[in-house]
Amino acid sequence: MTSVDSAERRAREILSSVCEPGDPDALLVVRDHSAAELLSNLRRRKSGASSKITVWSERLAALDTAALDGRIQAVNAHYLCPGDEEWPQSLDGLRLLAGNPRERRSDVPFGLWVRGGADLARLSRAAVAIVGSRSSTTYGDHVAGELAFGCAARDFVTVSGGAFGIDAAAHRGALSREAPTVAVLAGGVDRLYPHGNATLLKQLCRDGLVVSEAAPGCTPTKHRFLVRNRLIAALTAGTVVVEAALRSGSLNTARWARDLGRGVMGVPGPVTSMRSAGVHELLRQPETVLVTDAGEVVEHVSPIGEGLAPRKQEVATWRDDLTDSVRAVLDAVPVTTGAPADSIARVAGEPQSVVLDALSLLTSMGALVDEGRRWRLAYDVATPSTCPGVRP
Amino acid sequence: MTSVDSAERRAREILSSVCEPGDPDALLVVRDHSAAELLSNLRRRKSGASSKITVWSERLAALDTAALDGRIQAVNAHYLCPGDEEWPQSLDGLRLLAGNPRERRSDVPFGLWVRGGADLARLSRAAVAIVGSRSSTTYGDHVAGELAFGCAARDFVTVSGGAFGIDAAAHRGALSREAPTVAVLAGGVDRLYPHGNATLLKQLCRDGLVVSEAAPGCTPTKHRFLVRNRLIAALTAGTVVVEAALRSGSLNTARWARDLGRGVMGVPGPVTSMRSAGVHELLRQPETVLVTDAGEVVEHVSPIGEGLAPRKQEVATWRDDLTDSVRAVLDAVPVTTGAPADSIARVAGEPQSVVLDALSLLTSMGALVDEGRRWRLAYDVATPSTCPGVRP
Repeated sequence: MTSVDSAERRAREILSSVCEPGDPDALLVVRDHSAAELLSNLRRRKSGASSKITVWSERLAALDTAALDGRIQAVNAHYLCPGDEEWPQSLDGLRLLAGNPRERRSDVPFGLWVRGGADLARLSRAAVAIVGSRSSTTYGDHVAGELAFGCAARDFVTVSGGAFGIDAAAHRGALSREAPTVAVLAGGVDRLYPHGNATLLKQLCRDGLVVSEAAPGCTPTKHRFLVRNRLIAALTAGTVVVEAALRSGSLNTARWARDLGRGVMGVPGPVTSMRSAGVHELLRQPETVLVTDAGEVVEHVSPIGEGLAPRKQEVATWRDDLTDSVRAVLDAVPVTTGAPADSIARVAGEPQSVVLDALSLLTSMGALVDEGRRWRLAYDVATPSTCPGVRP
Repeated sequence: MTSVDSAERRAREILSSVCEPGDPDALLVVRDHSAAELLSNLRRRKSGASSKITVWSERLAALDTAALDGRIQAVNAHYLCPGDEEWPQSLDGLRLLAGNPRERRSDVPFGLWVRGGADLARLSRAAVAIVGSRSSTTYGDHVAGELAFGCAARDFVTVSGGAFGIDAAAHRGALSREAPTVAVLAGGVDRLYPHGNATLLKQLCRDGLVVSEAAPGCTPTKHRFLVRNRLIAALTAGTVVVEAALRSGSLNTARWARDLGRGVMGVPGPVTSMRSAGVHELLRQPETVLVTDAGEVVEHVSPIGEGLAPRKQEVATWRDDLTDSVRAVLDAVPVTTGAPADSIARVAGEPQSVVLDALSLLTSMGALVDEGRRWRLAYDVATPSTCPGVRP
């Protein structure tokens, strides 16, 4: 795809102030015609136009382009369009949603505002979204930070929404590994919202990227948060929800990921926590994978056979190396008072010859004590506390 | 199936002292021939017999049947055989495992020792297994108790292993609803193991059932715990693991449930808890369903369309009833200083006529304040803390 010319680019910059971010009608018109054509129509304000054309015309008439340019320059924002070298290919997956039912119809944005020096195309090549509740618990913040740190250690970039709670913890986790991280905002990139995260978001402008579909100056509205969520899902190979109440917006991001055929993951928590109730509901859907650490996240978003996480298992104990019959003999040996081989054989249900071999093996290992042809367990073996996980 | 005659029943009672519980060879011989025939062969102790025949013969020779009868009478245990009216049909599913690979080969037990007055066939008709770590956390105990209580409220019987931790919490949860509950032990029903749970298990003998494949007098060995687990899985429509470390025996019960085609469920916990690590590993397997309460457990083990749990959702708010365009107008109204309709229309991206209707609707609802054709949010709506879950 070739890059758009400068007139078209300028038209899109202006349209990003005039049309709602993610408006499927606006995206369709720009894709099938051009932003320049739409803009000139809006300027002529054709009579008998649809209500949307009327709204856009009124917004265009009210737009102070000098003020817009001032805002762009003030924060050194730049505008990416599809076809640009820094345009993230992964966003093109949104084209899939052009045929979706009205409620979740969407499309590729005609441009993105970016603040920061990093290359968005490069960062989104191996990226995961880590999202969740704004009113998170310390548990959720801890896990989100660990996940982002662990993903960074595996060269995966964390994308999130820059909000309080899980989003902020995820960005911070990546930054603490000195890895770039990307915040996609609902309002303009000049409005570092929420204000309480301004310091964090400024750090992202320096060490990562702050991205928005809406022009500088745009306020973050409820609707724009929901539309923004599709970009978080589309920029990444998968979305991890860390904590979410039953109506959390992060579940909306997970649904976009599902619709886009990207990975949908959830981190469980206590079933007694309402902050995890939404994640658990998500994890009850068959497409969602439960993850407990960054290794499992990276495994799920990597091509089959790549980025495999080691299967979790407790460290092996010396018992694991015993054969079934030796183990049966060990289990038949009394704890305190020694027993003779024939009685041990009866309890173990193993032939005498097998039992005699096993008793001498176990005694040589130090697991048994031979009290003159009567065997009992060695103290270390008999005491569960010294062999965690070994006793029944 | 007809019930076995008294000679065969007596032979099986004795064999349950001689053969290891769940020994697939013993089960096969008894099923294809009879316990009486096997027993008379063992008494004659044929020369050149296999090592297992030798072991069984030796155990039989050492068996004090008068002592066995004394133990049986002391605790008023009775013996059920397949074909008996009280024999639980669900156990016949174990026949499926006769063709399993050697490691997990199994079969229907040829009998079961029962202590308590209740009818095992009736109790197991609608039953779930609730199992988990012996060294559980207070979180796990709490959830296990709630699940068992909730299952009892839905007329499902809780089956577990009578162990410390999750098992005990599950039994107690059912008892606190005055519902019967079943403990399946690895050793004899006269040995209420672990001793620390003797009071609880005695209560089960009164208000529920204590069950074992092993004869009275048999000690609980590691191997017998694993074999016992298959009975817990087979007696129930599904197994719920509440807390389990990575090597927990309760995961073994879940695997039996999977092999038997019964429901496999897990209750999640914090990913930072090693007590939940085994459950999370289980929940990463596609056959496992995440459950957070008894309603979801019962739904999973009920026939499709029956016992449905209500889909969890936050209570609806007044915002949910608004149309999309009214909601867009609400979101466009400023918090502190009123704005005129045309400015609100521009922000909302809705036509003026729609906006004027929405403003008058929202004002009549008390959501907005009209300061002389300039609108702002009412205090209640503008303050997130009073509308949990409503603000972005």
